Parts: sequence; structure tokens; C-alpha cells
Amino acid sequence: MPVAMVLLCLIALILPTPSAWAQPAAPEAPPDEPEWTLLAPLRVVRLDNGMTFLLYPNDRAPIFSGVIRYDVGGKDEIPTQTGISHMFEHMAFKGTSRLGTTDYAAEQEALAEVERLAYAYDRLRNQLARDDSPTTARLDALRELAMQFQAAQAAAGQYVVKDEFDEIYSREGGSQMNATTSPDATTYFISLPANRLPLWARMESERLADPVPREFYREREVILEERRMRLDNSPLGRLWEITMATAYVAHPYGYPTIGWESDIANLKATEAMAFYRRHYTPDRAVGVLVGQFNPEEAEALLRETFGKLPPAPEDLAEHRIVPEPEQMGERRATLEFPATPALLLAWHKPPAPGKADVAAELLGQIVAGGRSARWFERLVKEERLAAEVHTFTGPGDREPNLFMIYATPQPGHTLDELEAALREEVRRVRTEPVSAEELERARKNLRADTIRALQTNLGLARTLAEYAQIGAPAPGEIDPWYLERRLHQLEGLTAGDLLAFAAEYLTDANLTVGSLTPPPSAEETPPGAGARGGTDSGASEEIQGT
Amino acid sequence: MPVAMVLLCLIALILPTPSAWAQPAAPEAPPDEPEWTLLAPLRVVRLDNGMTFLLYPNDRAPIFSGVIRYDVGGKDEIPTQTGISHMFEHMAFKGTSRLGTTDYAAEQEALAEVERLAYAYDRLRNQLARDDSPTTARLDALRELAMQFQAAQAAAGQYVVKDEFDEIYSREGGSQMNATTSPDATTYFISLPANRLPLWARMESERLADPVPREFYREREVILEERRMRLDNSPLGRLWEITMATAYVAHPYGYPTIGWESDIANLKATEAMAFYRRHYTPDRAVGVLVGQFNPEEAEALLRETFGKLPPAPEDLAEHRIVPEPEQMGERRATLEFPATPALLLAWHKPPAPGKADVAAELLGQIVAGGRSARWFERLVKEERLAAEVHTFTGPGDREPNLFMIYATPQPGHTLDELEAALREEVRRVRTEPVSAEELERARKNLRADTIRALQTNLGLARTLAEYAQIGAPAPGEIDPWYLERRLHQLEGLTAGDLLAFAAEYLTDANLTVGSLTPPPSAEETPPGAGARGGTDSGASEEIQGT
Repeated sequence: MPVAMVLLCLIALILPTPSAWAQPAAPEAPPDEPEWTLLAPLRVVRLDNGMTFLLYPNDRAPIFSGVIRYDVGGKDEIPTQTGISHMFEHMAFKGTSRLGTTDYAAEQEALAEVERLAYAYDRLRNQLARDDSPTTARLDALRELAMQFQAAQAAAGQYVVKDEFDEIYSREGGSQMNATTSPDATTYFISLPANRLPLWARMESERLADPVPREFYREREVILEERRMRLDNSPLGRLWEITMATAYVAHPYGYPTIGWESDIANLKATEAMAFYRRHYTPDRAVGVLVGQFNPEEAEALLRETFGKLPPAPEDLAEHRIVPEPEQMGERRATLEFPATPALLLAWHKPPAPGKADVAAELLGQIVAGGRSARWFERLVKEERLAAEVHTFTGPGDREPNLFMIYATPQPGHTLDELEAALREEVRRVRTEPVSAEELERARKNLRADTIRALQTNLGLARTLAEYAQIGAPAPGEIDPWYLERRLHQLEGLTAGDLLAFAAEYLTDANLTVGSLTPPPSAEETPPGAGARGGTDSGASEEIQGT
Repeated sequence: MPVAMVLLCLIALILPTPSAWAQPAAPEAPPDEPEWTLLAPLRVVRLDNGMTFLLYPNDRAPIFSGVIRYDVGGKDEIPTQTGISHMFEHMAFKGTSRLGTTDYAAEQEALAEVERLAYAYDRLRNQLARDDSPTTARLDALRELAMQFQAAQAAAGQYVVKDEFDEIYSREGGSQMNATTSPDATTYFISLPANRLPLWARMESERLADPVPREFYREREVILEERRMRLDNSPLGRLWEITMATAYVAHPYGYPTIGWESDIANLKATEAMAFYRRHYTPDRAVGVLVGQFNPEEAEALLRETFGKLPPAPEDLAEHRIVPEPEQMGERRATLEFPATPALLLAWHKPPAPGKADVAAELLGQIVAGGRSARWFERLVKEERLAAEVHTFTGPGDREPNLFMIYATPQPGHTLDELEAALREEVRRVRTEPVSAEELERARKNLRADTIRALQTNLGLARTLAEYAQIGAPAPGEIDPWYLERRLHQLEGLTAGDLLAFAAEYLTDANLTVGSLTPPPSAEETPPGAGARGGTDSGASEEIQGT
């Protein structure tokens, strides 16, 4: 550590401790090692406004898939506005000042009135929510406001051309159109006939330049209902939510991506647009095209359309993400819910692109990747203790994240037995190296899984976009070659690397245990589901849109 | 529940469920029951800008105490800016554009340069903190920025008249001058000779109207050091922090009032001033004068000075506090730290002014209020299992809070034994009514404790301010008579009320257990401290200022 660094640490408090798991430096150019062949056709286009496009042409069929991925998600939110990235993702399908409206000037006025009433209605509703004996007059006032609010929404709705954005794409042969929001990112994607690339570039750049938050409050209700279905009524959704909230006390990975219920219920269109202006800057977006197109023509088209998006303003307010303080002891969260019992074990670890993340994935594959994996053999088949056992990392990949085990007991076994067995197995990987055979088989399977996911245009496009962002050494940068770089990282890992990873991170003091258990009164244990096993890298709470 | 209410619930989601623990309605006028004598001398003055003063004259000595309490604290913060209320409290001692400066115009320019460099320096420092192999050039750039930042602070410091605010008060006979920030509120207080009331009114109204954030970044370092002393190096501070963060997953009572370390390290003066403008509105302040003064003259003086503070703007941005979702199962957080083992048990409960809060206080007094309390008798004296056992509520009183037990084991006993005994005792209060004798003794002691705290001018002034705000049925309102109202609530409570409180709230599914335990390697248990017992209502993480 240079002296300057030592001095600065005294001032700065949060400069890094050098670690065996250091992140690699940013790539300046595509690697030209001869064995790097997977991404040979990749062409990187950087626009002047900071947006990057990855072009991967092929001639398999006269179609292409287009993906836009913003490095904007749950990690960029604050309580009172959790769920706002997802809310904005919904808005991005509502059209622009040109698309989706019969008369934008009139619609704008009507939307301003909706907004005024949204503030008034939410404010009074919140006041009454804290008042256990509200007067009849105040209840009447709330009812009156609710009616005015509904009427204003209906008035604005008159100008809406329903789903115009979707319908243009459908008419022109679009398929697989959708969007997702995760703790890390918001992704928009579609597949189209090859000759529709100009349409795609115009439509996508227009909705990014000029989104209009129409039907916002209807969508707010839709998302509240979505939350109830996915989380409140879902034992696993709730187990996930409470385990993340317990493992993360300060970092936004502890918040649900769909948002706390009360936050969703209070979001405003004004806030969603402010969030969009703050975060949807071109330097945080990567676009990917995979399929049949002429790269030179495509590049010219992208510069002409997406190139018009204004760059991030110089004086953009500082964006901070609260780092998670070091965990100094085991934590547990029990969720009493009438459902099949389940365990979710989570240990903090560094994210991609460092070696630790690949070690976590490979280790997960060895212990729980499929029916011949170590834990499946022992816990599911031999001892008949576990019904399922999976490993994965998450909730995101852009920030320090978790190595997780999800497992359910077979009928006749308790969560305590299952947890004890899993912890014994974790102690084993902390103290004994995996065998050469296990390592090679897992490495081969992981490589095959990765390659398999790249067989379709859309699969490759989404993976390229994701890896380019999670492989970046710093926010606002990307590594277009991380997908292949990671495969090479994978080849280089040894049993000693896995042992070192487990010994450093899979400790009791770094563990959070979430357990789903029926309430004490409900004596019966629902029968376990069929035996399954699996591993999943980068599993995350991803919300599939529209 | 009226039909309108049912309908609105369908829309509104978060309207209240009527409960046996309903909050009382807002008081419209002082109660005139003959037995209400404690606050008979109290006079309430409401200024046009929304600020309220409570005047309590007495002629015991030619002195008075003045308190200003803002309903602004940790509960009003968001991650990325935790600790900002406390930071602003420090700023409020730095003077105004008139006090504490030799040349305000020149100082303003110098402070603008400090601010510019603060943003630049923090930004680069944060970037390097995420870069495990920063280049020498970037490290040099950071060092250069650090030096410029220091130089700019020194330049601005030339205009500072050190501690002018404090010195004027000291010269004029002020004593007990200080301030505190808690999860709920920020309180400024002082005692002065009776003839200095005009000085106090001018000084306090001026610093509220026109604070200048001078020496902000020096103070930021002071607070970082304060955090290290109070929290990072304090086993109890850390146990408190992790237990609150585990008990609250969404509500800001889960954040440390002093702030997460990285949040403090990144606060800006600009942000502190924006927080001040947003939250320091007169409607959220209550002022209290206790001591020798003429009420009519005082009222005229207050109207002339504090009356000039501008009221909250009509278009003030909506302020939301995220409610805590219902806890659905026990949670635990272990803190491994080389220190005396300790337990902190916490159950969610409603805050004041409802009956549940008084029931919690009375129950706490019965079980742990002093050396003849039930648990002290059994756990400390008879079984020699506990060294200390205390109960209290917190972390604040303005929002749904916690009933807590803090206990340490005697040497030779484990935390598990202690926890088992405490939980057995909690089951007992959930299922068996307390005896009439216990109830009466505890009630008498609580009443005496309350009255005792009101013997001094400053004690009465601080208590009046606090109870006026925590007794308010809704934010932005106050109940000047809650201090006495609460004593009457206390008189009315029965053993059945306590049993109902315990049965509803002190359940396993609603419990969070924080435990402080030496790391597994450190085998020795430090010897327990001397046996103590106690109870404390409204205990909170309060930071005593300056």
C-alpha cells in the first residue's frame, strides 16, 4: 500500500482493504488471445452521449433481438420510494408525447389535474390511516377526493390510445416483447423481423427520450395487486423478502424490488419522472443487437437515433449507494406461514467481476448442481432428509451480494435437522478441498450451461447486456467481453480457490438464516414437493414486466 | 365501521384496523377536571406561523429554562442521509449570518468553494473506494483534492468568530446549554437569569431563522469520531444498532440516529441546509419556558421574535415515513464482540398516546423497576442468574415502537439460560394477571418518578416539550396536557389491561432477540458487573450535543 494510500485512508474511512479477491482492471480493448472465440463477432459502438451498443450479427434467420439494459434498479432506490424503478418500467410502455395519445396538449392538462388530486388524496388517506377515530366529515372528504381523483383519471384517459406502442410492434411482427426490473437493472427487449431494425431504433430511442406517465395511478393499483400475488400470498416471496431485509441492514439490496406496499401505494407520477431524469442517462445504458443486420448500417442508424438522447448533465446530483456494514454475527428470521417448511441460508460475498463470484458459482454447482451433485446425492437420495436443495447468488450482481442455499425437508424431517446437515456440509467445504473429479465435472457443466443459454438471439442479447454491466469494474463503465472473460476465469479456478472462498466467506458470523415454518398452532406439515436440485448463478428477484 | 370506510379500505390499503388500543382524540381545550392540578399554571401560546409555546411560570428563583423541541429526527431521514438531523443540530451552534463571522459576504464565497471541493473530493474518494487497483494518477488526484479541500476550509475559517453563540450565553450567565438529537426529535435547551429572556428569544429565533453551516466538514470529522466512540467501540452501542436494524426492516427507527458511517462521511452542507428548510418549519416546533417571567410580557416577546419565522410553505413536498410491515416470526441477531455477554429482547407495540404505551411502562416497572421488582427478586437475587435486568420502550415514542428487556447473565450462567428464564417470565405476564399489590406499588413508584423529574425548571421544560409532542394524536399537532393526561391514564390501568397488552404484543412471532456474545475463539467470559435493575420509559438512542 503506497504511503499516499495510507494517509488517505485516515481521512477517507472507506477506502478498500486490499484483498486476495481483488477486482480486475477495466479492459481497454478486446482481448486477442487466440482461444477467445466466443465473442469474436462482437462489435462495440460507443455513442458520444455515453451509451454503448454491442452488435453481434449472425445470418441464421432474417430476424434480430434488441435489448436495452439500464444499470438502474432497486439498488438505486430509497425507502419512501422503493419500487419506483419497476413503476417506471411499466410507464415505458405507455407511449410518448406522439405515441399513445389523441391530443397531447389536452392530455397534459388533464394529467396535471390527476397529479394534483393524487397528492391531495394520498395525503388525506395517510392522515386518516394514522387516526383511529376519524370524524365523519374527514371520511366524507376522503370519499369526495377519491371520486374526484377517479373522475380526473377518466378525463385524462379519454386521450389515451390504448397500447399503441405494443400494437405497432405486434403489427410489424414483433415477438417476445417484455421488460424486467431487478435489484440491479431494468431491461427492455423484443425480437423483430430483420428489416424492422429502423423501426426498433426509432421506437426505443423515442420512448427513452420522451416517456409520458399516462395511466400512472391505474398501473399503481396493478402493481399493488402484483405485490399481493407475488409476495404477500407467496410463502417463498415472503421468505425471500424477510431474509434479504435481515441480511442487509443498510444496503438497498435489503429492499424488495417491487417495493414496500406503502411505498407503492404512495408513489407519484412526478416522482417516477424525476427518478427517470436522474437515472436514465445514456452512460448507464447498454444496447445489444443479435441477429441478421448489416453492422455498418446498424451503427449509422444507432448514432442517428439513440445518439440524440441528451448526455447526463454535468451537474447531476451525486448518487450514493449505502454500503453494507460488516456482519459481525449470525442472524435469523423466522417466517410463520402455513406452507411447506423451507430454509434460506445466505452469506455475504463480493460481487462479479472478481474471482470470488466465479468461485461461488462453481462451488454451488459442485454441491447442488443437478442430480449427481454432492448434496443431492447425500441429502436427497441417501439420507432422504432434503426434498430440494439449490444454491445461487443474489439478490443482484452489481453490488456485494450473497451466496445462498435454499432447501426444503422431506416429510418426517424438521428444519432443524436439515439446517444442521447443511451446516455440517458447509463446514466440510470450508475445511476440505473438493475432489478433482467434482471440480472438472462442475466446470464442464457450468460451461455447457452458459453456452446453452446463448443459443437463441434473445438469450445471447440479454446475457451480453447483463454481463457487460456486471463485469464492469466501476459504475458507469462496462466490460463487453466479461461473458467470455468469466469463462476463462472459470477454467483457471482450482480446488484451493474454492476452499479459500468458503473459508473466508461461508462463516457462521457472516450467515443469515431465513426459515419458513407453519405457525405453532398449525400442527400438520404440508407434504414436501418432489425431489429437485439445482444451482443458479445470479438468481435475483426479477420482475417480469407488463 | 361505516360503509364509506369499508369502501375506502379497498382503495386505500393502509387505513387502520380499529383496535382495542385506539388512540384518544385530539384535545381541543385544557381538561377542567378538578383533580388536574399539575399543569394548572400552564399557558399555551400559539403563534400564527404554527409554532406553539408552553409557558409555566414560577417564582422559585430569578432564573428560567428555555427549550425548543423540533419533531424532526432520525425518523425523518433516508439512507444515504442518515445522521443528517444530528449533523444539523451541530450546525445550529455555529451562528448565523450576523453571529460568528467577521465578514459574512466574504465567508459565503469561501464556503461556496469549500462546498464545490467537498463534492469533488467525496466523489473521487468513493470511486477509489470501489477500485481495488487504483492508478497512481488517480491517487495523486485524490491527494491533491484533499489538500485543496483542506486549504479551502482554512480559507473559510479565517472569517469564523469561534463559538460566539456559546460565548454570548456564557457571558450573560447561561448554563446547561446543550442539544440532543433522537430518533424522534431535536431539542435545544439552556437556563438563564430571569432578565435574559429577551436575549434568549432573540438568539434562539435568529439561529432558527438564519443558520449558517460553517465548519461543516470539521464537524463531520468530529461526528465520525463520535460514532466510533459511541458505537463502533461500544459493545452496547453495536448491540443496540443491530437489534434495531433487525427489528425494523422498513421503518426508519431501524437506522442509527448518529447515521451509518458511510452516510456521515458523505454528508454535505448543502444537504443539511435542504433538510433544515424541509423540516424545520414552525408547525413542527414546540417551545417551553419554565421559571421566573411575566407571562404577558413573555408572550409579546415570543410573538415579536419567533413570530417572524416564516410558516411552512403551502407547496411543501410531501413527507412520508415508511410504516413497518407486520412482523410474522421471531428474529435474532448475534453480535460477536469481546465484551460482557448481554441480551436485548424487543417486541413491536403501538406508541403513545394510546393506552398500550402506558401499559408497557407500568408492566416494565412491575417486573424490573428497582430492587424489589419481580424479576430482580427472582432472577438476580434468588436464582443469581441475571446480573442486570432492565425494561424500557423505544427507540422513539412518536411512531410504533418496541417494548424491550435488557439483561446480562451472572458469571457461570449462559445467555441461553438467561433467555429461557426471561421468556418463561414473559409467558407468565402473558397468561397470569399481576397482583394488586404489585400493581399499586409500581403505579406509586412511576407516579413518584414522573413528579420527581419535574422538580427542576429544565427537567419540567424538557418533559413538557417531549410529552406535548409524543402525546399528539397526529404529526403536526401537539397535546400540551399529555404529561398530566398520561398520569391519569396510569391511574386507570387494571391488571386486566396489562394482561391484554402482554397477550397481544409480547408474543414469540413479534420478538427480536439481539445477543452480544464473545467470538467463539475467545473462551473466557468477562466477569459480570454488579447487580442492578431498573426500568425506563421512552429510553432512546439520544445523542447529547456539542
